[in-house]
Amino acid sequence: MSPPDPRGLGPGAVLGILGGGQLARMLALAAADLGVRVHIFAPDADSPAYEVAARHTIGAYEDEAALASFADAVDVVTYEFENVPAATAAFLAARTPLHPGARALAVTQDRLTEKRFVADLGLAVAPFESVDSLADLEKAVAKLGRPAVLKTRRFGYDGKGQVKIADGTDLAQAWDEIGHFPAILEGFVTFSREVSVVAARAADGSFAAFDVCENEHRDHILALTQVPARIGAAAADAAIEAARRIGEALGYVGVFAVEFFLVEGEGGEQVVVNEIAPRVHNSGHWTSEGAQTSQFHQHVRAVCGFPLGATARRGRVTMQNLIGDQANDWRAILAEPGTHLHLYGKREARPGRKMGHVTRVLPDRD
Amino acid sequence: MSPPDPRGLGPGAVLGILGGGQLARMLALAAADLGVRVHIFAPDADSPAYEVAARHTIGAYEDEAALASFADAVDVVTYEFENVPAATAAFLAARTPLHPGARALAVTQDRLTEKRFVADLGLAVAPFESVDSLADLEKAVAKLGRPAVLKTRRFGYDGKGQVKIADGTDLAQAWDEIGHFPAILEGFVTFSREVSVVAARAADGSFAAFDVCENEHRDHILALTQVPARIGAAAADAAIEAARRIGEALGYVGVFAVEFFLVEGEGGEQVVVNEIAPRVHNSGHWTSEGAQTSQFHQHVRAVCGFPLGATARRGRVTMQNLIGDQANDWRAILAEPGTHLHLYGKREARPGRKMGHVTRVLPDRD
Repeated sequence: MSPPDPRGLGPGAVLGILGGGQLARMLALAAADLGVRVHIFAPDADSPAYEVAARHTIGAYEDEAALASFADAVDVVTYEFENVPAATAAFLAARTPLHPGARALAVTQDRLTEKRFVADLGLAVAPFESVDSLADLEKAVAKLGRPAVLKTRRFGYDGKGQVKIADGTDLAQAWDEIGHFPAILEGFVTFSREVSVVAARAADGSFAAFDVCENEHRDHILALTQVPARIGAAAADAAIEAARRIGEALGYVGVFAVEFFLVEGEGGEQVVVNEIAPRVHNSGHWTSEGAQTSQFHQHVRAVCGFPLGATARRGRVTMQNLIGDQANDWRAILAEPGTHLHLYGKREARPGRKMGHVTRVLPDRD
Repeated sequence: MSPPDPRGLGPGAVLGILGGGQLARMLALAAADLGVRVHIFAPDADSPAYEVAARHTIGAYEDEAALASFADAVDVVTYEFENVPAATAAFLAARTPLHPGARALAVTQDRLTEKRFVADLGLAVAPFESVDSLADLEKAVAKLGRPAVLKTRRFGYDGKGQVKIADGTDLAQAWDEIGHFPAILEGFVTFSREVSVVAARAADGSFAAFDVCENEHRDHILALTQVPARIGAAAADAAIEAARRIGEALGYVGVFAVEFFLVEGEGGEQVVVNEIAPRVHNSGHWTSEGAQTSQFHQHVRAVCGFPLGATARRGRVTMQNLIGDQANDWRAILAEPGTHLHLYGKREARPGRKMGHVTRVLPDRD
């Protein structure tokens, strides 16, 4: 742990990260560039981030003795996933700075709370209804119509914990499928494409967004990001302004992502907030080579209290996820001029598992 | 030279690196991008590379038991410094592929051997004489004139182990100063600037050079690199061709650097080989943001038998070393848009110590 600097932390500071997956790994690599030491805390015996971190603690997120030692050993704590238990966050925040803070976690861990938070900011969201019972679900479907999507309020990601309510879907079965957990029903939004804004906010309120990017999902998993997105300037500005307001309202410190549906309406394009991720985000991986500062460096800067970096884009960029055995193509990818391969060091390529990604940067068309 | 690796390394391979300084650290960070695990072997209790490597062994380079365990634990060995003891290299090479190989070390560890090797290739070098005694020194000075530079044949770097022989220099004192070690006297070359070529050669003979860069030294330590270098196309081509021939003649596998003096003669510019470094090189640090593939990624690719990456430059690039307390300016550097700060995680900023570097990339003037 480094001595306190009146201006905040400096190089040599120890950054604690909850979670040891690829996002923590890429944060650790960025931290190393800035001379910041990383200490990972994660429950798994083996995790991609351990190999590039100065220290790691293997512990359960409920193990208060382990968390207390971890908090003592670091200068600031961040996390790579939004499902950090609230008690863990509170326990750590009482001992060491936690960025992003507890409010960001509380809002984004619960789809209903998040939707209400976004709607209260006056931003467009898909129509939604709270669902705590089969009766609620029936009422909600009657109100929002079909198709719609039933999602658990908590702990969903990459399409897990959700069921599409189509024309023939049996509601009791759908309710069974999500395990009778508190849920929301989201009305279907007819969108032309999905876009996201990855942005950073610093403790002093400064804000820096990367260019809006366009995302293509397959089987509920991000497959491809391209920047610039096919979006008009007004809608792009609206998306970035929405992200700025969300960051502001959360008192956010760090990098976050806001996913939007781009809807073609009579008045032109409109952005509808789909989801907020209080962390570095897969749709921001293009920034590693495609922007002046990567989202990982930016997050380390923000949570350590360093100045935010420039977010200018370096060209036309694509980021392709390598899912499961797609990573077996590594040699062909390396042989392609100008590609940037990132592998996460995972030992087993299971179907649906994110094994790595590739970015490609081409000169801007003038 | 080791033959192409029959095991056909892939991601998940373990790369052993001798040395734990900033070059090993940056190699480890690049290896992580490619899913390659790193095992550092170094004698120091604490080294910058340990923090970003999956494993490290603290051991003397003469400790054969430790070296044997290390060799067993890795798939290929490389190094970050040219002064690897020959016995260490031979011991490891008998157990696991060593890239670059023993020949590259043997040639570049001895300034006299290196100069003869370069001259034998028909490439221009500064005039030189072997010096094994004060009498030799007197004869050599009589032959080459003053000014000249007396250098130990072995173990010199960053200006260590050399004495300038100026008009009034007492030769006996100069001979004392370098400790009566076997030496060479180099005639003074009047150059307009110093340039270098950082290039890679793969086991299959493929070769890829980065653009010629221009280097400015202060107190014998690299201060600033800029690319493109101020050099004509013919001389730049000659420098790259010299590097190619050197790599070929060494049967080299990995990244290496060739430093040149740029001399303005009657027939135009000429490049005179100054020094060969059988490793990633400080004058190649600009490639991290300034080229499509960084020298660190390129070295990992080469020594693991992966395809070499594209070396195209991304713009006008400068790389400024942060020596000693220059690293204290980190906050101002981070606040400057578009800079890329790299700190090496060294705890103490001693005078003359390389603490980090900064790259800046600007669009090419068309």
